[in-house]
Amino acid sequence: MPATIDVAEPSSSAKGKAVIVAAPHPAKWKKGTAIIDFVLRLGAIASALAAAATMGTSDESLPFFTQFFQFEASYDDMPTFQFFLIGMAFVSGYLVLSLPFSIVAIVRPHAVGIRLFLIIMDTVALTLATSAGAAAAAIVYLAHNGNSSSNWLAICNQFTDFCQKVSGAVVAAFVCVVCIVFLILISAVALRRH
Amino acid sequence: MPATIDVAEPSSSAKGKAVIVAAPHPAKWKKGTAIIDFVLRLGAIASALAAAATMGTSDESLPFFTQFFQFEASYDDMPTFQFFLIGMAFVSGYLVLSLPFSIVAIVRPHAVGIRLFLIIMDTVALTLATSAGAAAAAIVYLAHNGNSSSNWLAICNQFTDFCQKVSGAVVAAFVCVVCIVFLILISAVALRRH
Repeated sequence: MPATIDVAEPSSSAKGKAVIVAAPHPAKWKKGTAIIDFVLRLGAIASALAAAATMGTSDESLPFFTQFFQFEASYDDMPTFQFFLIGMAFVSGYLVLSLPFSIVAIVRPHAVGIRLFLIIMDTVALTLATSAGAAAAAIVYLAHNGNSSSNWLAICNQFTDFCQKVSGAVVAAFVCVVCIVFLILISAVALRRH
Repeated sequence: MPATIDVAEPSSSAKGKAVIVAAPHPAKWKKGTAIIDFVLRLGAIASALAAAATMGTSDESLPFFTQFFQFEASYDDMPTFQFFLIGMAFVSGYLVLSLPFSIVAIVRPHAVGIRLFLIIMDTVALTLATSAGAAAAAIVYLAHNGNSSSNWLAICNQFTDFCQKVSGAVVAAFVCVVCIVFLILISAVALRRH
């Protein structure tokens, strides 16, 4: 672990020279990326939580019913929406847990190990969030438009509130995806020089 | 600001020690990651092309028909499958175009700019491939199992060949996704030290 050494080293010996020559500029730049990382991470958490909460509270009962059946739509009628909820819950849980690491990266802009850890975990989170969002989007599209060749009818004529909520959740998920993409780009740029 | 000193310090004073001990090794190690990158990229290309080709050739006509209608299933009946085809075609196009960059990274293991370019473009390709795969997977799941609450019936009882081809395309897409995830991880590790 060379990273642990970098950090510990300067406090002991090299203070005198390095401060004068070139140190302040790259460190500032690094710190800037770490702060942007933290802010973007907050945005990603907010949108992931919004997506999960919106999906989780989406259900609607229609005001009429037959003898055998009341018409009701809820996210747990669709396995894809259940996957969406679980996936976004995982992503927001990971993002919350990653906040302390992001703070450490602000305090110690040159700790490479943390950046590397974050970029790897962010990539996994990106895959999860994207697949949850895209799968739900495919179903939402079907709910809005139906598909004539396979004879699947649009259900959004009846369940308007449900469809609106679900569409909102998908949009929030894609906002989260965009945030995580930028998180990865920033981490990659910050890893470049150290 | 004790942290600012880290970077400038080793380059100025600690050279003597570091060069002798560990210099030749990292170059080899870098080259190794670049070669793995190239091989993984070939795997990703193969699976992306397989996914696109399988989806593109998937259509099936049933041997019976009514007066008004012949039963036929093809990828272009479903907007999601069209998106899948276009998305995977883009991804495989990008991956083929990125091969020369990967070769340059083998020849010059310390060219940081190329690595950075590849990691950024790979992240975008990952998002595209994941969303295409997940959206198609959601529809394939529906085609296999149907959904009782929204009254969408499974169509795979009739269109068995079509469903098999489409499922195969989704699996190939996820193989491609896994390859790209590992590409990003390797690039991140290789960016760490230079």
